[in-house]
Amino acid sequence: MAVVTNLEPKRRKSTPLDDLTALVADDLSAVNEIIVQRMHSSVDMIPQLAGYLIAAGGKRLRPVLTLAAAELCGYKGEDHKMLAAVVEFIHTATLLHDDVVDESDLRRGLASANAVFGNKASVLVGDFLFSRSFELMVEVGSLDVLRILSKASAVIAEGEVLQLRTTNDTETSEQAYLEVIKAKTAELFAAACRVGAVVAARPQAEELALYDYGMNLGIAFQLVDDVLDYSAKQAKLGKTVGDDFREGKITLPVVLAFRRGNDEERAFWRRTMEELDQQEGDLERAQELMAKHNALKDTVERARHYGSIARDALGLFPDTPVKAALLEVLDFVIERDF
Amino acid sequence: MAVVTNLEPKRRKSTPLDDLTALVADDLSAVNEIIVQRMHSSVDMIPQLAGYLIAAGGKRLRPVLTLAAAELCGYKGEDHKMLAAVVEFIHTATLLHDDVVDESDLRRGLASANAVFGNKASVLVGDFLFSRSFELMVEVGSLDVLRILSKASAVIAEGEVLQLRTTNDTETSEQAYLEVIKAKTAELFAAACRVGAVVAARPQAEELALYDYGMNLGIAFQLVDDVLDYSAKQAKLGKTVGDDFREGKITLPVVLAFRRGNDEERAFWRRTMEELDQQEGDLERAQELMAKHNALKDTVERARHYGSIARDALGLFPDTPVKAALLEVLDFVIERDF
Repeated sequence: MAVVTNLEPKRRKSTPLDDLTALVADDLSAVNEIIVQRMHSSVDMIPQLAGYLIAAGGKRLRPVLTLAAAELCGYKGEDHKMLAAVVEFIHTATLLHDDVVDESDLRRGLASANAVFGNKASVLVGDFLFSRSFELMVEVGSLDVLRILSKASAVIAEGEVLQLRTTNDTETSEQAYLEVIKAKTAELFAAACRVGAVVAARPQAEELALYDYGMNLGIAFQLVDDVLDYSAKQAKLGKTVGDDFREGKITLPVVLAFRRGNDEERAFWRRTMEELDQQEGDLERAQELMAKHNALKDTVERARHYGSIARDALGLFPDTPVKAALLEVLDFVIERDF
Repeated sequence: MAVVTNLEPKRRKSTPLDDLTALVADDLSAVNEIIVQRMHSSVDMIPQLAGYLIAAGGKRLRPVLTLAAAELCGYKGEDHKMLAAVVEFIHTATLLHDDVVDESDLRRGLASANAVFGNKASVLVGDFLFSRSFELMVEVGSLDVLRILSKASAVIAEGEVLQLRTTNDTETSEQAYLEVIKAKTAELFAAACRVGAVVAARPQAEELALYDYGMNLGIAFQLVDDVLDYSAKQAKLGKTVGDDFREGKITLPVVLAFRRGNDEERAFWRRTMEELDQQEGDLERAQELMAKHNALKDTVERARHYGSIARDALGLFPDTPVKAALLEVLDFVIERDF
């Protein structure tokens, strides 16, 4: 395997993400209770399917961000827990529809919900969770929160449609790719952080600082995810390596390798990712070309840039344990090997 | 053709639905402008796909109900137009997802959006319209409206999931069938009417009266739709007869024919609708059995019952042209031959 990245395996008991999660552990277990209660429906298949995905052991990264942002803003109320549940519902609804759209069979190392329950149920339960998330927001009663999260939801959908257009197009520009991941991934990170400041009624500068932190963390997160899809280290987590390659999903490593390649290499990318004409050994060839052109390494470098912006965004806030943890998560997200 | 219904063809230039629409014509053209403006996105495929469906010539029945309800309540503001657009967006999003779920190729006599743009785009543009509808509601700024329409959206999704369970089950009870159509069709009619009273800040009794009118109108509407799917008169509108039959969708005409049938007849229903083992002549046989057992006639009779409840629900309101038009729409929906 000729994959060259600077993601050295770091085996440790507790990651910075664990540390951040530990700081909001009590709130998070309240959020988990809200999630279970509020995905209830008299139509059995809904809690079954939603529970299958929600219990499938996601990192709860987005709700943790909402809780941590509220903590950073010194919030002492209860509404942040409901909003954290809202954010997880929106995320789960997006995953359900995403898997239908991608025709994925695997999610977090398990059979995806659409593979188990069927596409129809996945579309409809996604709709249910999405509607339920708005019901919960209405209970909280903040029009500002509703504005931020309805906007985020529309932007996510736009990002997904945009991605349909870039899929299989090897000439996708770095800028176009960035637009997609800002919309489909980073916007929800940004909104999840921002609403923490909104419930705490903090000044707009803090709201926007948290939005910027989330946005840039989200971009970095997705860039590294895209790198990991070509990294052998993925296999450890039950994730398949090369999913994006097989689907012809154009991510930054491909954009860079394509643009830096010669004619013969570009023909390779067109055959495999545009025409989806793939043979034994093509994934390994793709990995070799990425190594040759430093495509993975430089994608991580780009991620570090966004991580730096996120770091400075939090400069306004006083130094507290939760701020330190949020900053450590940045490095972790970029340097992780899973 | 042995289809016996009491739906006599009534050829007239202007239907009661046209008359109701004429009463709110100015508002409706403002709503159409809002719809076009607000389905805009920098991602071209979104207005293209949404426009394809929205321009496909629906009756705009739900937004007309919102406008008429506001008029009935003496509302003089502007918010009802935005809410009428919201209701149409939610309806359109539901149609998009419904066609994906049903794998329909035809909608209103045209190729369905999923047949033209693909399932992926239909799921995602549905999500976009749904999110956008919440953004518009936030602009209106009424938490009561947000509560009613987010609840309605969740109920619609529940109804669709519930329908997955009853599809192909010939032993579905009339009650179970009613639960499905109340949720997936009538709830949005009810909410569309109710928000007209909410923006007008009318007392709760009027709000609920309009909710009941919409709910019972919606049930009657769906029952008659289900009858028409077995009626030769459908063909006139470019609608295929027997769609529900071919999909094994259990509707009240089937529920009644199955329960009133003998063993041999029930075996027929099981073969055709549960096992979907259908042959030449089976649709005609289904129509004969419905005629034999008055299944279509009695479904229309049931629709009349809900129409009567809807009529009495409006008893609270003073006699005005718009009230008269809303009452005439009830008879029209039940006695229409399309």
